[in-house]
Amino acid sequence: MGSINIRPHFQNRALLKHTHTQSLYAMNAGDGPLSYVQNSSYQRGIIDVAKPIIEQEIATKLDIKQIYSNNPNGFCTIADFGCSTGHNSFPVMQLITQAINRKLEYSSHKIPEFHVYFNDVVTNDFNTLFSSLPRDRLYSAAAVPGDFHGRLLPEHSLHFGYSAWSLQWLTEIPKVVADRDSPAWNKGEILYRGDIKEVCEAYLEQYSRDIESFLKSRAVEMVGGGLIAFLVPGVPEFWNPEIEYSFPSGLNLLGSCLIDMAKQGRLSKPKVDSFNLPFYFTTQQQLKAILERSHSFSIERMEILDNPGKYTLASANARAAFFRAGLERMLTNHFGSEIIDELFDLYTKKLIASPVFVNPDNDKSIVILVVLKRKID
Amino acid sequence: MGSINIRPHFQNRALLKHTHTQSLYAMNAGDGPLSYVQNSSYQRGIIDVAKPIIEQEIATKLDIKQIYSNNPNGFCTIADFGCSTGHNSFPVMQLITQAINRKLEYSSHKIPEFHVYFNDVVTNDFNTLFSSLPRDRLYSAAAVPGDFHGRLLPEHSLHFGYSAWSLQWLTEIPKVVADRDSPAWNKGEILYRGDIKEVCEAYLEQYSRDIESFLKSRAVEMVGGGLIAFLVPGVPEFWNPEIEYSFPSGLNLLGSCLIDMAKQGRLSKPKVDSFNLPFYFTTQQQLKAILERSHSFSIERMEILDNPGKYTLASANARAAFFRAGLERMLTNHFGSEIIDELFDLYTKKLIASPVFVNPDNDKSIVILVVLKRKID
Repeated sequence: MGSINIRPHFQNRALLKHTHTQSLYAMNAGDGPLSYVQNSSYQRGIIDVAKPIIEQEIATKLDIKQIYSNNPNGFCTIADFGCSTGHNSFPVMQLITQAINRKLEYSSHKIPEFHVYFNDVVTNDFNTLFSSLPRDRLYSAAAVPGDFHGRLLPEHSLHFGYSAWSLQWLTEIPKVVADRDSPAWNKGEILYRGDIKEVCEAYLEQYSRDIESFLKSRAVEMVGGGLIAFLVPGVPEFWNPEIEYSFPSGLNLLGSCLIDMAKQGRLSKPKVDSFNLPFYFTTQQQLKAILERSHSFSIERMEILDNPGKYTLASANARAAFFRAGLERMLTNHFGSEIIDELFDLYTKKLIASPVFVNPDNDKSIVILVVLKRKID
Repeated sequence: MGSINIRPHFQNRALLKHTHTQSLYAMNAGDGPLSYVQNSSYQRGIIDVAKPIIEQEIATKLDIKQIYSNNPNGFCTIADFGCSTGHNSFPVMQLITQAINRKLEYSSHKIPEFHVYFNDVVTNDFNTLFSSLPRDRLYSAAAVPGDFHGRLLPEHSLHFGYSAWSLQWLTEIPKVVADRDSPAWNKGEILYRGDIKEVCEAYLEQYSRDIESFLKSRAVEMVGGGLIAFLVPGVPEFWNPEIEYSFPSGLNLLGSCLIDMAKQGRLSKPKVDSFNLPFYFTTQQQLKAILERSHSFSIERMEILDNPGKYTLASANARAAFFRAGLERMLTNHFGSEIIDELFDLYTKKLIASPVFVNPDNDKSIVILVVLKRKID
């Protein structure tokens, strides 16, 4: 590079940091029976619930003046952070562009051109996304690969941000959790359980850092007065694992299958000990505390949504396929592809055998909708 | 859509127009032995020759003031129209960003952030492009799928455009060429030959319209004072097919293989008659006449480059693989995949048997480098 003055925040951006972990974060590609496309009706359910709320927030809160300030050509930029292969994203992007369009029709401004950036990790299947783009969309489409905890878009260029089912992914497993000498060592489990306080705290700390990085990058990219809406899976403040379940208990059950397979000699036990899932499922209070620390965003709305999508996972097979679509790359990378079918067969059997998991009404998982506004500096 | 006022130029943009033809325009995907990645050293050769010229044009012609006007945050946007899987694009994008960076270092301006848009048709393999992005790049990367003859980017947002080996692709085969009742019917050939004037004229007219559409869209997207550099394959004003060859004669030889296979009953003759390649190889004079009709761009530089890449196709196998990487999707779509191996085996044999084609020195194909500047309205 010689004497060239390189701006550090784009050099090695996204692709160097967390490269190894992030490459495993993509959902199952394509549109076959094991794909994310075919196994995300659970996620889709809550998006339908969120749509009218997002519409209302745009109508009442989005600061139109900011779209046109420093933007003489009047274009409006929207981004979806964590779009996967797009089929859950397209209806929301359509809704957002229509809602902004409708709002601007009654203003004295020229209706802007809409540009939507679809973001996900570099290994995401963007080919499937592009080939599925709706024909009658109001926007031009671009894909931006990379880790959304870092910078992705030009400064002060983004008017509306959106993210669904993505912020629960951690950029890394907290180191202490894999450290045999730490009180936070998470021996024999693939996710925190709640019985070891230090493990839970380590996960929450990582989650806080990641949400903060996400907001810090968006603060640079967004125009003042712009909105960001996101949907994050979480857990209620209290729930009874004896008769109810939630995201973490569903994953802990998967962990118990790995332990069973290790006991049967199908897997090595240290392999199971060293495997931890990079997820955190927040409570509303925990998330609120993190968001309130931001100096760049104000909380415009925050509420727990009821997810009708949970009834699409009424069968054990559907629930197993739901987890498989999101976890297969990571499991394959750690354990090898040959154990995957057996693992999910066992998982399906355990789901069927469990009196707790058979009824979707017992699913106490929550989804939190947050709408933030970028403060005007 | 109800009463929403849709801006027509993004509605159905790119994806509706020429959808069928364009979907076949992508190069062979991935990075295997038949991929474009492995079979484009010919194209790469000329890019190396063009690089110092592009560098010089940026140093002397790019209007820096325009980068910062209406752009208070100072970012610089570059786009490659027809990037394929990126490996021939990345070195050029690196060169362009370095050259602009170097130029701005000596100005009083803040060095901007660089954003590169990689464009190709919707069916292009962007996954391979994203996974190959260089780590030490100076820019953030986005992909924009769609037909570059239409609008792709925001108005007045593009500072530097680039396109290599892409503008020879026509958006459609001229209709008269496939019309049995027209004097321009191109019976039994897969490309114009030169002996039927009406066929050549029909191809040239389509080429002119396509170049004009390309420029019209770029005129909207580019800032005044911005530059666009492109490399297009062409033919000299005169060449002797008895002892020399060029792109069209290489393709006509492939056509003769299809005719032979039809004679042997391996293909249906009407299928061969109805197959025409959507390419035009311009002369410098023809291209100059088209470009001079533009009211939005001035010609800053136009010259014929010598392509050292031709020596990378010294063997018949390499030459056959070169054509296959670019044509396989189109041939498969029309004739079925089962004839492809046989067709290229026959083609390789014909190349070996030909006294003209055995020596790369006989290749009189040219590549024209053009640098245009967007006039300031």
